[in-house]
Amino acid sequence: MQYLLKPSALLLSLFTLFSAHSASTLATTSKLTVPKNIIYVIGDGMGPAYTSAYRYFNDDPNTRAVEKTIFDQLLVGMSSTYPDDDTYVTDSAAAATALATSHKTYNGAIAVTKEQQPLMTLLEQAKAANKTTAVVVTSQINHATPASFLAHNEHRRNYNEIADSYLTNLINGQPIADLMFGGGQQYFVRDDKDLTKGFIKFGYHYIDNIADLEQLNQFPALGLFAPKGLKPALGSEYPQRLMQMTDKALQLASAQKKPFLMMVEASQIDWCGHSNDISCAMAEMDDLAKTVTLIKAYIDTHPDTLLVMTADHSTGGLSLGRAGTYQWKGQALKQVTMMPSAIAEKMLQTEQPISLWQQTTQLPLTKEQDARLIKNVADAKFEKKPTKYLTRFIKQLIDEITYTGWTTSGHDGVDVQVFAYGKGHKAFTGHQDNTDIAAILMQMVSQ
Amino acid sequence: MQYLLKPSALLLSLFTLFSAHSASTLATTSKLTVPKNIIYVIGDGMGPAYTSAYRYFNDDPNTRAVEKTIFDQLLVGMSSTYPDDDTYVTDSAAAATALATSHKTYNGAIAVTKEQQPLMTLLEQAKAANKTTAVVVTSQINHATPASFLAHNEHRRNYNEIADSYLTNLINGQPIADLMFGGGQQYFVRDDKDLTKGFIKFGYHYIDNIADLEQLNQFPALGLFAPKGLKPALGSEYPQRLMQMTDKALQLASAQKKPFLMMVEASQIDWCGHSNDISCAMAEMDDLAKTVTLIKAYIDTHPDTLLVMTADHSTGGLSLGRAGTYQWKGQALKQVTMMPSAIAEKMLQTEQPISLWQQTTQLPLTKEQDARLIKNVADAKFEKKPTKYLTRFIKQLIDEITYTGWTTSGHDGVDVQVFAYGKGHKAFTGHQDNTDIAAILMQMVSQ
Repeated sequence: MQYLLKPSALLLSLFTLFSAHSASTLATTSKLTVPKNIIYVIGDGMGPAYTSAYRYFNDDPNTRAVEKTIFDQLLVGMSSTYPDDDTYVTDSAAAATALATSHKTYNGAIAVTKEQQPLMTLLEQAKAANKTTAVVVTSQINHATPASFLAHNEHRRNYNEIADSYLTNLINGQPIADLMFGGGQQYFVRDDKDLTKGFIKFGYHYIDNIADLEQLNQFPALGLFAPKGLKPALGSEYPQRLMQMTDKALQLASAQKKPFLMMVEASQIDWCGHSNDISCAMAEMDDLAKTVTLIKAYIDTHPDTLLVMTADHSTGGLSLGRAGTYQWKGQALKQVTMMPSAIAEKMLQTEQPISLWQQTTQLPLTKEQDARLIKNVADAKFEKKPTKYLTRFIKQLIDEITYTGWTTSGHDGVDVQVFAYGKGHKAFTGHQDNTDIAAILMQMVSQ
Repeated sequence: MQYLLKPSALLLSLFTLFSAHSASTLATTSKLTVPKNIIYVIGDGMGPAYTSAYRYFNDDPNTRAVEKTIFDQLLVGMSSTYPDDDTYVTDSAAAATALATSHKTYNGAIAVTKEQQPLMTLLEQAKAANKTTAVVVTSQINHATPASFLAHNEHRRNYNEIADSYLTNLINGQPIADLMFGGGQQYFVRDDKDLTKGFIKFGYHYIDNIADLEQLNQFPALGLFAPKGLKPALGSEYPQRLMQMTDKALQLASAQKKPFLMMVEASQIDWCGHSNDISCAMAEMDDLAKTVTLIKAYIDTHPDTLLVMTADHSTGGLSLGRAGTYQWKGQALKQVTMMPSAIAEKMLQTEQPISLWQQTTQLPLTKEQDARLIKNVADAKFEKKPTKYLTRFIKQLIDEITYTGWTTSGHDGVDVQVFAYGKGHKAFTGHQDNTDIAAILMQMVSQ
């Protein structure tokens, strides 16, 4: 059956609501259990190999059993992610548009149809329904995923246009999200304009330092904590910055005493995947796992809240095991304390690369690997981009030691998992398309 | 809680029932819905990328939507597959032992503990409970997966020993399985002995030609249809041989008027994965999809039957999309009509390799690919193993054209999916370990 929405007349005139590709496979809608609050979590790039990897990364070697993760506790189904073309492999914009609007579109589209008509988003719908709305991400807040909930644009790369539209795409005279935490200072505080001033005019409190989160008690609020994306979790002063931002967002949204809809994205799992960087990916997964543990605890005390989590797609063609070896040494990645690029930078400045390797990774090297590392450090110094060259080698060495495989610097077409907890979670059981997830959530918000 | 079994005193004396690693996470057992019949399907090597791939392989290009598959209809959860060592990546024997006995063991083990003590299998338990038992596979019937349900051996490679034990591992004076369809003539009809005669003494009807399946009406029965594994589905005279065997097995088992337990394995998805052969894999998936469609139809008319399907592990580190390209052209694989090895053999005997390529694959080649194919045919003729050399190139060319990625000739540690349908299917919802699946089924069989 067709998804039914009850938008205002104004919204109806603005948005394309019923495209041919709208989800049509919803279960009997009359039985839908409707939660008061919805927390919608997206692990960007987090295909099934990432949650499996995180379990083994996180396994306690002192116990015989492998400990189940928060992901294991919450798994309810899987989702297909294909875009509306013949590629079957989606980009983050088309996938986020599907998750935000319930419509398939072309790769690159930000909440617009193939014909570039705007599609109403879940956050717009929530705002129109007078709910509290929030977005918490580790990318810049105008990156593809958050943008697909907050803006409409023909292409994700129009970062400034998208940022500008956050002040002009209004519902009831207000920006779509009452709270936005993430990065993106360079798009919001520019030579030509300072968009943060626009938000302040709308009554938003603006902070630009993650250390100020703790003291933040005002609402609405805008927090931009980095020029573009936040610093990677691995080696960061704030390795659990998604959890910290989500914690504060939950406190503030909860205090509004209205139903809320919050979108939380672990944006950088995808970036680690594109970079084929398994240490980076596990650190981002750890931040997400702790964020979701926090959300689950919130729901345990606020049982009228629903958590739905999925990925927009998988990235990198990650595999545990490679080149014929039946083993994955992901636990060893816990010893890697810095991003490979940071290790490479330091290594180019030391006379003792092996000793630096041991300090920063504790991963044992064979004599042959020792020699190869030394040779690559020497070779890097003759390259145009020495750090890039050496970073690449360090990532490959870590993959070799841990038996980690990759097939691409892009995305993969494998289905992703769906996790849910709290009121209404059963609606997401089994296989579904990414548009189905949004359709069910939109139906919940409309009631 | 600990899994509870009610075996006979004889069985108790024979088997190690309660190892430390037995599944301990079962839901409240008192609520278990117990089916009369159980059909346990294993897609060997069928990780999540395979079911996603099959959906896109199978997509009707004349419709805008992507058609859901039988796998999509039946998905209920996922399963971890790690063995009982520190590798996290299982082999088929350890995984099959987990799925057959609910116990983790070492890679290579056939239904024995780390200490090489026998573990009671689900089929043994069913036989002891006077149920009809059947095994239908496309490998030899003494290969790792079926063997882990029917035998106990310290190593999967002891093929003759395992075959021999099918006549000596008895319950109530009878072999464990009342019906066995698959391959393996060379292990059962040997120079030193003819095991089929032993089965005939036990009252089994023996056939060795798949064409004789249709006429088979006697029970118990043994069908060995190839020296080792059955011919691959791709290019075979019997591309749906798993479906045909399962159809007959269901008819015969159903006619016994007793509850039955049937294990069905699509054995060769794994072999295609090891060989990094996507055309081969899609043909095996197609046979499995048709088999499961048949089983679903059976359950629709016999609602006291449960289907549970999973994979023992994923193989090959398969990805849809590779090397930065956001596309998977899996639909083109429908045009590949022969195994790459068969194409290679023919190609080495023709003067017109390009024309043969077009006849057998219909995949368009660029001029550069044309030239590369011609060069590889010429090069192959100077190799020690020309067919092997050219087969490898043909598979790589198909991967290149379809954007298919692989990371290994071995297995991958990613979680696999769990599918269920019919009476009691809800017991398999969400995340579980492979030992949990067996524990629930053993509990069902014991009631």
